[in-house]
Amino acid sequence: MIVSLKASMKEADVAKMAKELKGFILKEGTQRLIVTSSKLKSIPASFEKWVKKSIVFDSDIQLASRKYQEETRTIYLGNGRTIGGITGNTVMIAGPCSVESKTQIKESAELLVEMGIGVLRGGCYKPRTSPYSFQGLGLEGLKLMDKMRKKHGLSIITEVKDATHVADVIEYTDIIQVGAKAMYDHGILRACGQVKKPVMIKRGFGSTLQETVQAAEFILSGGNPNVILCERGIRTFESKTRFTLDLCGVAFIKEYTNLPVILDPSHAMGFRYGIADLTRACVAMGVDGLIIEVHPKPDTALSDAAQQLNHADFKALYSTLAPVATAVGRQIV
Amino acid sequence: MIVSLKASMKEADVAKMAKELKGFILKEGTQRLIVTSSKLKSIPASFEKWVKKSIVFDSDIQLASRKYQEETRTIYLGNGRTIGGITGNTVMIAGPCSVESKTQIKESAELLVEMGIGVLRGGCYKPRTSPYSFQGLGLEGLKLMDKMRKKHGLSIITEVKDATHVADVIEYTDIIQVGAKAMYDHGILRACGQVKKPVMIKRGFGSTLQETVQAAEFILSGGNPNVILCERGIRTFESKTRFTLDLCGVAFIKEYTNLPVILDPSHAMGFRYGIADLTRACVAMGVDGLIIEVHPKPDTALSDAAQQLNHADFKALYSTLAPVATAVGRQIV
Amino acid sequence: MIVSLKASMKEADVAKMAKELKGFILKEGTQRLIVTSSKLKSIPASFEKWVKKSIVFDSDIQLASRKYQEETRTIYLGNGRTIGGITGNTVMIAGPCSVESKTQIKESAELLVEMGIGVLRGGCYKPRTSPYSFQGLGLEGLKLMDKMRKKHGLSIITEVKDATHVADVIEYTDIIQVGAKAMYDHGILRACGQVKKPVMIKRGFGSTLQETVQAAEFILSGGNPNVILCERGIRTFESKTRFTLDLCGVAFIKEYTNLPVILDPSHAMGFRYGIADLTRACVAMGVDGLIIEVHPKPDTALSDAAQQLNHADFKALYSTLAPVATAVGRQIV
Amino acid sequence: MIVSLKASMKEADVAKMAKELKGFILKEGTQRLIVTSSKLKSIPASFEKWVKKSIVFDSDIQLASRKYQEETRTIYLGNGRTIGGITGNTVMIAGPCSVESKTQIKESAELLVEMGIGVLRGGCYKPRTSPYSFQGLGLEGLKLMDKMRKKHGLSIITEVKDATHVADVIEYTDIIQVGAKAMYDHGILRACGQVKKPVMIKRGFGSTLQETVQAAEFILSGGNPNVILCERGIRTFESKTRFTLDLCGVAFIKEYTNLPVILDPSHAMGFRYGIADLTRACVAMGVDGLIIEVHPKPDTALSDAAQQLNHADFKALYSTLAPVATAVGRQIV
Repeated sequence: MIVSLKASMKEADVAKMAKELKGFILKEGTQRLIVTSSKLKSIPASFEKWVKKSIVFDSDIQLASRKYQEETRTIYLGNGRTIGGITGNTVMIAGPCSVESKTQIKESAELLVEMGIGVLRGGCYKPRTSPYSFQGLGLEGLKLMDKMRKKHGLSIITEVKDATHVADVIEYTDIIQVGAKAMYDHGILRACGQVKKPVMIKRGFGSTLQETVQAAEFILSGGNPNVILCERGIRTFESKTRFTLDLCGVAFIKEYTNLPVILDPSHAMGFRYGIADLTRACVAMGVDGLIIEVHPKPDTALSDAAQQLNHADFKALYSTLAPVATAVGRQIV
Repeated sequence: MIVSLKASMKEADVAKMAKELKGFILKEGTQRLIVTSSKLKSIPASFEKWVKKSIVFDSDIQLASRKYQEETRTIYLGNGRTIGGITGNTVMIAGPCSVESKTQIKESAELLVEMGIGVLRGGCYKPRTSPYSFQGLGLEGLKLMDKMRKKHGLSIITEVKDATHVADVIEYTDIIQVGAKAMYDHGILRACGQVKKPVMIKRGFGSTLQETVQAAEFILSGGNPNVILCERGIRTFESKTRFTLDLCGVAFIKEYTNLPVILDPSHAMGFRYGIADLTRACVAMGVDGLIIEVHPKPDTALSDAAQQLNHADFKALYSTLAPVATAVGRQIV
Repeated sequence: MIVSLKASMKEADVAKMAKELKGFILKEGTQRLIVTSSKLKSIPASFEKWVKKSIVFDSDIQLASRKYQEETRTIYLGNGRTIGGITGNTVMIAGPCSVESKTQIKESAELLVEMGIGVLRGGCYKPRTSPYSFQGLGLEGLKLMDKMRKKHGLSIITEVKDATHVADVIEYTDIIQVGAKAMYDHGILRACGQVKKPVMIKRGFGSTLQETVQAAEFILSGGNPNVILCERGIRTFESKTRFTLDLCGVAFIKEYTNLPVILDPSHAMGFRYGIADLTRACVAMGVDGLIIEVHPKPDTALSDAAQQLNHADFKALYSTLAPVATAVGRQIV
Repeated sequence: MIVSLKASMKEADVAKMAKELKGFILKEGTQRLIVTSSKLKSIPASFEKWVKKSIVFDSDIQLASRKYQEETRTIYLGNGRTIGGITGNTVMIAGPCSVESKTQIKESAELLVEMGIGVLRGGCYKPRTSPYSFQGLGLEGLKLMDKMRKKHGLSIITEVKDATHVADVIEYTDIIQVGAKAMYDHGILRACGQVKKPVMIKRGFGSTLQETVQAAEFILSGGNPNVILCERGIRTFESKTRFTLDLCGVAFIKEYTNLPVILDPSHAMGFRYGIADLTRACVAMGVDGLIIEVHPKPDTALSDAAQQLNHADFKALYSTLAPVATAVGRQIV
């Protein structure tokens, strides 16, 4: 239940009520809210006098629900890019899977500048499933990304894979990416709830839509309203492609939640060949953003070599997107 | 292996060679082929003299492979509609889940005529999973469809669900739909191989891409070159939507096979709300066709009530498709 | 709803009531039943006078439900073997994947006789996913099986894969196996409902438990009470093993249905190495039967070569089963 | 590749070689190893003189592979219980889903003492998917568990859900449980590699067997040889049960890895009714341990209420396990 409180209610009473209802206290402008479990269906009589309005929910999709806020959240990503709301923007995010070297990330950044793309991706902490694979450059990578930000004014997004480096990622990035394998990590989610930077949660490949939106609720109920979801493919019985991009799930997110949604066709497909078609499909679906893996020399990439586009192919793809966006009343930014 | 034979080879020798190699004999124009298991990697010496050309394959995707025929198959669907090849067509197929009555199918047919859509769908033999649900009108339904064909010149597609009525479906329809639950039915596949009518195979919701294309191989190796695939969603762990539309799989089909591919967002989604977005995504993906469930009064439908669009919503959706198709260099027909 | 009718009700009225309620008429001994969709929750007033008792259900699991008949069905399999009921039997079924030759099936039959096993399996119509693979010996195979039956008194089980040969399979076998890929085939299910021979339905690898039990309802409502389910593994994201044996699903079947359940660890595993452990697990689970693939020379088998046990390994496995069965109060027969 | 080094090799050279090969240095008794990516298939000539023996692998399952060490690892769990090796032990672990109160965990501990069970489970940090659900008692719960350890000599196992509390869990428990949702958490895995306490990794419900064993490799290559795997059900399309217990996967683990394996039927099933049958199946499968959720009053449990057994049912189940274990040559401890 989401309860809006009257202005006359004292802070001490708010705290007491929240404690009794096991709820979270949130402030939205001058409005104070208490958010409790959705199992609570009515307000105890003793608190009724302070309640301005309350909304009851079927499940723990509450702050993220269109029933709470009908319009999609509007979130500023830095570098002039806004996602969601009434913008009609489909924000392009591009860059390599991993930050590998100063030269590589410099070439990536320059590509984006040349193309007028505003948000640079690049993994520094790689959630590899084998200890014997490249694990990312860590803090050194973050600093390389930071240089590109300062030099080119690019917004930076990078992935946090566990709670040990969440503070560093929060410090250095413009947008915090909660990795698909870290979607349930309360240490990360809690930390992300305590800042105001935009957070993009990647849906776990084995995670339901309900769980994914509830991961967002951890951050929203923690006090950070700037949460974006990212669909990047789920794990199914089909093994010809790396994952299965779940556009039906995207339709669900668009219908029932107020969270902007970004699509990652690169990880879903796992192979270069299908990415152009999938990206155009995502644009026509009317999503709020795209995140594409691009690498100066994909064949030598230290991770995800098979799915990263080279610069020429990415440019060719990019040039086809604007007409599709226009056809559905949106624009690529 | 696909072996092209020299014109000089006698029929009796062809038969002998096919028998020895456990292969199928096919005629393409004046060209005779023997198609064997892909496990055969070289031609026995005694037959070499008759071989014009041979192609070796990694798996039993052979006649359907772009390695055998690079261009997508061109298939005439009747009523002026051609699918595949260099047409750039995205063929719209629409109609109710089930043929329920004379009035209902008449209204559906008239809607198509009004909108300039050429192919009418409608199930007569319904593969319901419960014996206590509506099972379809059977032959009576086929005859109702046939009337619409004769009256309006519409092409008709309906589903065959088991081998007991395959002859009737073949007789009455322009396009034979092999249902998702019947995809492995050799009785059906064999019968479809012996005619030349277009066959649309719906991928089983538990079927791999490899198996789906191999189902097509049953028909192709039987002598019918006119096979189309239909992706209609696979069964995954996600239960918020009915199935998960596998666009990554569509990318695979487009890359590796020469079969036109039709998308069915209605069954994938299972709910009206996502169908418009998904349909536009499919168009932007560059698929060869769409099959959408439309019903004069969806709420009273005897099957799939939740996912059928009403006429107004379908018209609204349809009007948005042409710009998307244009944006990717195709046209809706 | 299942409605028991009073003895006084006339046949014509029964027929009229069934028609109006869109139900099936069944006879159990002297008792007549009408079985309707589970959506029917109350009996129209005009029919009430003839109703002895009625049972309402949540879903279309009705005749198969323990709510209708609490005790597991008791079904005679021939050759002195009874499955289900209060027998405590775990019936062993064994034999090759495919009937390949007279010699092979003779060796298989003799192995069973030597070991005191009563039911011989062997596929004649193979539901191969590729047209270029061995498709089974068909009617010739059935006749070879029949010889073994006559010579050794063995019960025979073989698979029907589509409706074109269902009559032959019904004629020649003691137990009709509805293949996993044919589970939704109404032509087969209808034919099986019109005989009294035991029918074993293999759960489709992409089929839910609900659908599987509803497939049984097709046969039960058709008039054949002798239906057995077989769990043989479902398709999941895990690709190291062929399928995933669903013992949680078996627990569901045991809890909610009155159908005996047979386990097929061979197809689930897909590899010889795990079959002994899995078989013992199934016995300890308290299932009603086991079906294991055994071949005189597995490495030369024309299908499923990787998962068939040789005779020595099967004997070794078999000798370990009785103690496990005893430990859970059952016996292998 | 795993390389055994000669005793004569100097530490500095070991370090140099490890750095060049991007490998981990391990000490097993007096033996020093370097473990590299499995992509390394041969040793550079310059290092050959120091190599005693090397083993090449197909994939990054290396230290966990039976190819490296044929016998299952022998791991002491405390309180007189040893798992794996030649013990033939099937270790019972039991207790509530969550530690909820002093009274509750006291009753649980006393039950174990009464029954002669040695290892107590109980969650303190609960990886709930909703922020509005009970999140566990945290450190307070750990201290309650610790009291039971001190008072009754029980071994304690509890779950770490993210890296923020891994140090506390390591300090207070005898066995560290890496939760299913934390399986990819490098912060946790790295911390677990630096201690010698036994670590039980729960397979993620969306994780492949390969990934699960590779999670173990993170800990093994970090220097902790005491890793146990736990199968607790994977997420599939079947929704009648909470998850699908993957016994085929257990067969794979037993065949190819040297890691003891513990089965968790409670989480797999999600309902009380199937747990007894499943547990007996697991025992007959020959697994190294079992972990069962038992609660003094399941209906009031703050988490997993539907699947926890009450004390009476658990005792009844437990009494049936010894005969099954005996039948397969093992003993419950």
